[in-house]
Amino acid sequence: MSALKKIQGNDLIQGVLKLVVTGKYGKTLLISDVNAAIIVTLMLIPQSLAYALVAGLPAEAGLYASILPLIAYALFGTSAALAVGPVAIVSLLTANTLMPFADIGSAEYTELALLLAAMVGFFYFIMGVFRLGFITQLLSYPVMKGFITASSLLIIIGQIKPLTGIYMSRGNLIERLHTLDISTLHIESTVMGLIAMAILFWARSKAGISVTNKLFGKFGTLSRRLLPMILILLAALLTGLLDLSSTGLATVGALPKGLPSLHLPEFDMALIRQLALPAFIITLIGMTESIAVAQTLGAAKRQRISANRELLGLGAANIAAGFSGGFPVTGGMARSVVNADAGAETPLAGALTAIFLSLGILFLTPWLAYIPIPVLAATIIVAVSQLLEFPSMANLVRMNRLDGAISWITAILVLIWEVEAGLMVGVALSILVMLANHRSPFMAVVGLLPSTERFKNVNHADTETLPNSVFLRIDESLTFLNSGVVEQEVLKQVASNEAIKNFVVVAAGIHSIDASGANMLKRIHQELAGAQVEMYITDVKVPLAKKLEAFHVFSSAPEKRSLSTIELYRQLQAE
Amino acid sequence: MSALKKIQGNDLIQGVLKLVVTGKYGKTLLISDVNAAIIVTLMLIPQSLAYALVAGLPAEAGLYASILPLIAYALFGTSAALAVGPVAIVSLLTANTLMPFADIGSAEYTELALLLAAMVGFFYFIMGVFRLGFITQLLSYPVMKGFITASSLLIIIGQIKPLTGIYMSRGNLIERLHTLDISTLHIESTVMGLIAMAILFWARSKAGISVTNKLFGKFGTLSRRLLPMILILLAALLTGLLDLSSTGLATVGALPKGLPSLHLPEFDMALIRQLALPAFIITLIGMTESIAVAQTLGAAKRQRISANRELLGLGAANIAAGFSGGFPVTGGMARSVVNADAGAETPLAGALTAIFLSLGILFLTPWLAYIPIPVLAATIIVAVSQLLEFPSMANLVRMNRLDGAISWITAILVLIWEVEAGLMVGVALSILVMLANHRSPFMAVVGLLPSTERFKNVNHADTETLPNSVFLRIDESLTFLNSGVVEQEVLKQVASNEAIKNFVVVAAGIHSIDASGANMLKRIHQELAGAQVEMYITDVKVPLAKKLEAFHVFSSAPEKRSLSTIELYRQLQAE
Repeated sequence: MSALKKIQGNDLIQGVLKLVVTGKYGKTLLISDVNAAIIVTLMLIPQSLAYALVAGLPAEAGLYASILPLIAYALFGTSAALAVGPVAIVSLLTANTLMPFADIGSAEYTELALLLAAMVGFFYFIMGVFRLGFITQLLSYPVMKGFITASSLLIIIGQIKPLTGIYMSRGNLIERLHTLDISTLHIESTVMGLIAMAILFWARSKAGISVTNKLFGKFGTLSRRLLPMILILLAALLTGLLDLSSTGLATVGALPKGLPSLHLPEFDMALIRQLALPAFIITLIGMTESIAVAQTLGAAKRQRISANRELLGLGAANIAAGFSGGFPVTGGMARSVVNADAGAETPLAGALTAIFLSLGILFLTPWLAYIPIPVLAATIIVAVSQLLEFPSMANLVRMNRLDGAISWITAILVLIWEVEAGLMVGVALSILVMLANHRSPFMAVVGLLPSTERFKNVNHADTETLPNSVFLRIDESLTFLNSGVVEQEVLKQVASNEAIKNFVVVAAGIHSIDASGANMLKRIHQELAGAQVEMYITDVKVPLAKKLEAFHVFSSAPEKRSLSTIELYRQLQAE
Repeated sequence: MSALKKIQGNDLIQGVLKLVVTGKYGKTLLISDVNAAIIVTLMLIPQSLAYALVAGLPAEAGLYASILPLIAYALFGTSAALAVGPVAIVSLLTANTLMPFADIGSAEYTELALLLAAMVGFFYFIMGVFRLGFITQLLSYPVMKGFITASSLLIIIGQIKPLTGIYMSRGNLIERLHTLDISTLHIESTVMGLIAMAILFWARSKAGISVTNKLFGKFGTLSRRLLPMILILLAALLTGLLDLSSTGLATVGALPKGLPSLHLPEFDMALIRQLALPAFIITLIGMTESIAVAQTLGAAKRQRISANRELLGLGAANIAAGFSGGFPVTGGMARSVVNADAGAETPLAGALTAIFLSLGILFLTPWLAYIPIPVLAATIIVAVSQLLEFPSMANLVRMNRLDGAISWITAILVLIWEVEAGLMVGVALSILVMLANHRSPFMAVVGLLPSTERFKNVNHADTETLPNSVFLRIDESLTFLNSGVVEQEVLKQVASNEAIKNFVVVAAGIHSIDASGANMLKRIHQELAGAQVEMYITDVKVPLAKKLEAFHVFSSAPEKRSLSTIELYRQLQAE
């Protein structure tokens, strides 16, 4: 365990290699890492091919995006489990970003994907260096649920064409439905795709799980994870042997032999400006997914993940993708879970995955050419359908109408308008709701619970009150946004009762105060004094007390801010 | 008093006139209102002339802006004290807004001022009808201090030319200094202006106050308030008798005789679009000043002011200004205080002011022509210098660096860039600082104060703790913006101590939670369970308890969220 702890927060060079030299990276750890790498490689081959197609790129771009980026991440990142590579939603965002600039399939488009990956890498670096990882927190839970569900639905709908041949353009739901042309249906493709889908869905069903567990014993889970790879290899075999492509069945086709060539993407300032916002959003989404995954998997082993180091790792991975024929990558949820389950113990697992995948490319290329596109589409649909969170979104509406509304609005805008616009509206709504909540603080007139020293909302309990005094508990920091509301409430309380001689703000729930809030307190203090009402503030906690002193609130009468509620109550009662 | 209470929240027709009919609006109230109206009229004449010049308009526009708008406000507004009419900062904003569209002094410019006033009136109405008055709260105390100080400084610097003849263009500080031409200095103007300034400043000094109080007894304050009017009448007399305008001394000049003609401003959609943002900002600034004044003066008499009714009143006033040769108006701070002091008891005082001012125009017009511009400039400088709040801004920096920085940044941007831009940057910074504070909640590990039931920060007091349990108090609502920070802190606490078996969130200071916060709690509950750590949440208040239930946090183990901190402490201690 001590060796492991040391690796945390280290990269490949500083961690693993040093431990190899000092003999601490022993046989057990190596076996774990190799084991994880083999399994992840077998998952990654079909996924990388499929997600390249989602991104509108030739299949080999997916393979290329799964070699150098993984090694770069292993060198700079900190998570042992995070499996970097092409992922579905980032691939969708890549296609959405590049489509306005070049035709899918053109060399220009492939070049643009390199530029985009390099820019995404640059943004990751900036975020990591300036410790801006927290920006992902702008993407609230409801926004992410809505965004991921809608994006996944777009991906699934986008697979109808590769699965069945039915034509539709890319773009949002309306554009896709508008251009749908059922006359292009291709029977053989559809049959093969649906069979693959049925097998894959079945394997994830209860029946499938129990059957595979019976068949393969403790390798049941593994067998289900490798099923997509097994299926596409079988389908490729079938297609090759029966020469199915002569029926018009689309296949991956001949891939360039060997490893990717390294070259710089073209840097065009005008283009860079136009790609900046989408690249930033791809970074944000990638960060959100990766860091959450890395932290969750890390926490299970009580390992802390440095979010900013992760960003450097992902930045390096994307820059590597930009230089080696890839496209934007990030840490994939499903693969990372598999990686962790399979025992990945150090970042070496990721580097080994890259090596195994390179070997795969060198030896499997002729085979991969026969992979039928409908089967790849089926693997995408089944994988991405796990990301559809309609039940969670429906639950959210039941739990909290506003959060639910934000989630659905985000999803609908992503579906029928644009991914970026949907996300930005969702974030803006989340902030507005938060500010609106902050603007309407919970305020309650409280009274003393008889024979205790505790004060409760007079509407919730039988309490004692003093006839000429009002105790108002305010449960919110006082800022420029809510001090007007608080002032109104105080003035309302005082105006509604001519007998009031003492007004007490119970501040146990006021965590902080800004200049506007302080000024409001001074103003009402003065206004109430003008109406012969004494004002006090009680149960002031240390951080608030410091601020009240700094802002000179009650500076001429510090006893008005230093008592506990019960002390003041007894004092006023005695008067 | 009962009559008065009834007037509150009523307008002129529904209130005063009904009371006149029923005989309740008696002699005393009428005398109070007439008295206030006379004094306000005498203040308003020089101010309205002067502020018209600040707005870049002919002097009569100021008078016109002080007749119908006041009657319109009296009909629709609720405040007895608020004295509506031209005010310095709104006049500055008017000039800044219109300058890019027309030359100052041109008929086109005067027409544009009407359109602007009508648009401002429209915005006030919208704000009133849709109850959007709270939007002014976006203008935090630091932003307003910085904005008002910088605007006032711009107004004062803008008076250098009318005071001395030294040429400078309008615009921001840089533009003004850049075009400064000292060769245009006019000695006679400068001497007369400086003498007037000296007298006015002296009258506000301690010496001046004590001398005038001795001279005029209980009318000392009144004498100082009417001093500007007395000075300009004397200066006009002097200028007329000695024919000083032949030396090149600028005077107000012949005013059109009689009352303003009513006509519609021209409505040009392209212009309206361009004027929309500045008109909105003029509305916002006018609202902020007026409503604060009305509420402060109202509170002194325990009268509640309906902000939304005020907005309708100010909307009516501005629309009236747009139809009767005026420009944007609002409630002036200084005049309103005088109005209240002089005893204004009902909105009739405002209507009477308009009537007296009309009489003044009818009979004084020949006299007003001789008023020397340098003396008007002197009255503006002295009045507006009261709004310079450099000491408050310096204090703010000492009280709280961030609030202080916001104030100074706003002021500097208003001075050297643009009024609107400065305000908007200030508001954006205020919101950012608030969100940043919210993002870093106060969190403290707490322990039990021996022989009490209270828990305190372990760093602030000698407390008892349990070896295998951490009690973390979180003092902030949990939202999407801070749940990442809280999660990090929790995981840090757990990772730093292998012995921890129980993790307790003390929630007395958590007022609310959103879906992201709830999801974070569920996630760490799960993560901690994975690391064999039990998680609890204690001291949950009713509003939070409802939300935790709605979001199904600890729904399978409600006892983990229902205990008080001391109950759980005893229970864990007993284990």
